[in-house]
Amino acid sequence: MPLAPADDALADTLRPLLPDDTLRRAEPRYLEEPRGRWQGSSAWVALPRSTEDVAAIVRHCAGKRTGIVPYGGGTGLVGGQIAPEGQPLLLSLERMTAIRATYPEENTLVAEAGAILSDIHDTAEAMDRLFPLSLASKGSARLGGLLSTNAGGINTLRYGNARNLVLGLEAVLPDGSVWHGLRRLRKDNTGYDLRHLLIGAEGTLGVITAASLALSPRPAATGTAFLAVSSPRAALDLLALARDQLGETVSAFELIHRQGLDFLAAELPDIRRPWETPPEWCVLIEIGLGRGADPVAALETLFAEALDQGLSDDGLIASSETQAQQFWDVREHIPEANRRIGSISSHDISLPLSAIPDFIVDATQALNAIGSFRINCFGHLGDGNLHFNVFPQDGQTRADHAHQREAIKSCVHDLTHGMGGSVSAEHGIGRLKTDDMTRYTDPAKLAAMRSIKTALDPAGIMNPGAVLP
Amino acid sequence: MPLAPADDALADTLRPLLPDDTLRRAEPRYLEEPRGRWQGSSAWVALPRSTEDVAAIVRHCAGKRTGIVPYGGGTGLVGGQIAPEGQPLLLSLERMTAIRATYPEENTLVAEAGAILSDIHDTAEAMDRLFPLSLASKGSARLGGLLSTNAGGINTLRYGNARNLVLGLEAVLPDGSVWHGLRRLRKDNTGYDLRHLLIGAEGTLGVITAASLALSPRPAATGTAFLAVSSPRAALDLLALARDQLGETVSAFELIHRQGLDFLAAELPDIRRPWETPPEWCVLIEIGLGRGADPVAALETLFAEALDQGLSDDGLIASSETQAQQFWDVREHIPEANRRIGSISSHDISLPLSAIPDFIVDATQALNAIGSFRINCFGHLGDGNLHFNVFPQDGQTRADHAHQREAIKSCVHDLTHGMGGSVSAEHGIGRLKTDDMTRYTDPAKLAAMRSIKTALDPAGIMNPGAVLP
Repeated sequence: MPLAPADDALADTLRPLLPDDTLRRAEPRYLEEPRGRWQGSSAWVALPRSTEDVAAIVRHCAGKRTGIVPYGGGTGLVGGQIAPEGQPLLLSLERMTAIRATYPEENTLVAEAGAILSDIHDTAEAMDRLFPLSLASKGSARLGGLLSTNAGGINTLRYGNARNLVLGLEAVLPDGSVWHGLRRLRKDNTGYDLRHLLIGAEGTLGVITAASLALSPRPAATGTAFLAVSSPRAALDLLALARDQLGETVSAFELIHRQGLDFLAAELPDIRRPWETPPEWCVLIEIGLGRGADPVAALETLFAEALDQGLSDDGLIASSETQAQQFWDVREHIPEANRRIGSISSHDISLPLSAIPDFIVDATQALNAIGSFRINCFGHLGDGNLHFNVFPQDGQTRADHAHQREAIKSCVHDLTHGMGGSVSAEHGIGRLKTDDMTRYTDPAKLAAMRSIKTALDPAGIMNPGAVLP
Repeated sequence: MPLAPADDALADTLRPLLPDDTLRRAEPRYLEEPRGRWQGSSAWVALPRSTEDVAAIVRHCAGKRTGIVPYGGGTGLVGGQIAPEGQPLLLSLERMTAIRATYPEENTLVAEAGAILSDIHDTAEAMDRLFPLSLASKGSARLGGLLSTNAGGINTLRYGNARNLVLGLEAVLPDGSVWHGLRRLRKDNTGYDLRHLLIGAEGTLGVITAASLALSPRPAATGTAFLAVSSPRAALDLLALARDQLGETVSAFELIHRQGLDFLAAELPDIRRPWETPPEWCVLIEIGLGRGADPVAALETLFAEALDQGLSDDGLIASSETQAQQFWDVREHIPEANRRIGSISSHDISLPLSAIPDFIVDATQALNAIGSFRINCFGHLGDGNLHFNVFPQDGQTRADHAHQREAIKSCVHDLTHGMGGSVSAEHGIGRLKTDDMTRYTDPAKLAAMRSIKTALDPAGIMNPGAVLP
């Protein structure tokens, strides 16, 4: 049975149940997404101010069999926030931005789903704590979306994915009931872990309205370095060496190919580059140490040993916070340079660490058999997470290669899957990767997912078309 | 519709589907549990050698609507491994003990569900890595049970609960299908997180047959200390101080009340006690530092500052591994001393850290209104996890207080729940706490749990009577 649209008639029945000005016509900004691939079909957006408002909206839509698309910062890269058909109601959490409470002695805070990540960072910092989830869109991404997609980012190596930072959730389930699960406990074994089921479900099993978040101690001293490496294999050996010397204090370990630095030089020349003539491969390392430790000395020791072992022959250690920020600017602007060049096909994949060197060789060879491309391979090597993105040669455009796009994607994804990897490491499934998920997911898992979806959302109103179409 | 028993007729139809000697009559050891509270009703135990065997057993039982109780090391404290009625088939994973593979450069190993925790420790150590999950029953607890109950233990503060150490699972679902989910990825956002749903489900949603486990670097140097503290509040302040000075390197922070040391002196006099005249409260701290660091010096610095701040006036820092082991022996033998004394009611609870001092005062007062008891309060303070156990006065027995048991339990659990705590921090629900779960769990969560259980196990064959009776 198809869902009913969130049309003017639906709006007229919903409006009286909500405070004034909760429902608005959906402005164009809600109907776009960063990849420019889809145009949303929604006519109305609901802007609730409270969990009770969210519950009233979901309850009403459940009764009317009307779809709902939860909307956070709109920064998702797989179309989870956009419904190109069916005219579901957009449910934006942007008014629910409160930090409800802070508990410094528990290393915890409770934030609403609309809170922007960088505001949560600031709150944690004011508590002399760290909320370690961090990614390029931190200035606009909202907590609910970050949790619903189980966001990854640059500090996963040390602190885990978004799901690892959540102690409790408050959420509105597909029948409009409210799960009051904002516990602040490090141990709680009372029944099934609904928290981890909602995290990463991309809004298809309910709407996260608030979360209690685990904070970490702030490292007393941070060190940042660019080290040239001779190959991805050398980068992995360097990672092992770094963890051997520095244990869990290695908080980021990013692999960067020269192609990314070249794109940056061409498209964003104001970003200061680490090398005039960049090496083919380099890594950006960040370490966060305890009190009394000297991060520059630690990185120098690491580099000296890497030099001895032939893993690196050139390195730059940031001598100031400004310089460290410049290093990070390089890394964080590569996606923007990519966007300006225009990829033919982008791949957010993860692999078992030991498979990465072979993967890069094999995937490059396989793509050469399809055509002539520029490959920008970069990403969170410490997590086995590569952004393996394929671009046209200089002078050509992505449109010139439109006919090869599917072949490129299948080539990369088949290889990834064959090596035990994932075709969506950190971006999720959304609407972009539903076919990939069906193709590569274990059948027993897929059947279980469908059973769970049907059990919790029998009418299929929550984010229809996403994850499980 | 009631389930069919796993009687001789069932055994006769199942036997031909399995390798020889897979089915045996259930010996008495399978029908007992550590608390001596229940006697199992099962007549048959299946001892599969492979995942395929497990799948054949589950498929057959699903067809016959026969219950299955997965059985690990039998060490669970809430009766999850014992079925006092209905005569379900016991499914013991004890023959599936293989470490299937090790991946030192990925900090990963893959182990079968029957592997004993201490064997996994040894394997990790041989790889120069650490599998940090540790608890008193490590010599007999098996991986499948540890994951199915999301075991906690002494290192949760630093490394998280069991669920945080699992990268992937292989499991047989209630219809007998096999989920091949043994991924070794740090990031994988392809659909709902079935892994976290099975972990902590206590065998009610399927049988875990193997897991890929995340290992950690081994700390280069470990330090252990007993510090006397003036109160639980002072213990919390000391924890904050320790984390401020030592960051995430604080790997254990155990609170111990004098009552536990007195029980130890009375029941297990061979265990060397840290003090001749113990303080009312003390903490056992363990730190694990990186290369080149001096843990004794770090603990001395901590103690000096604690002394300055009036948090501690006496401390013992282990000067050798032998002494550190003696310190841990004290902590790890308290449960055995408790067993010998015989508690009236034991409580495995967790609380928000900031609520703990008030809880201890309030709970003690409330119990005084019920009767005259000895309270042994100890546990993993760093995780907010207390074992708040109530004993008869010297000269009385637990039987003398049988009429007060329910009142004691309700008193402790109501207070815990009222302060935002959990009535099962690390032991799970099993069969002991199903009423508590129904009473204290948020109704929306409970309804979602029931929906999920029905969706994945419509006949209710998996561990019938546990978690959701």
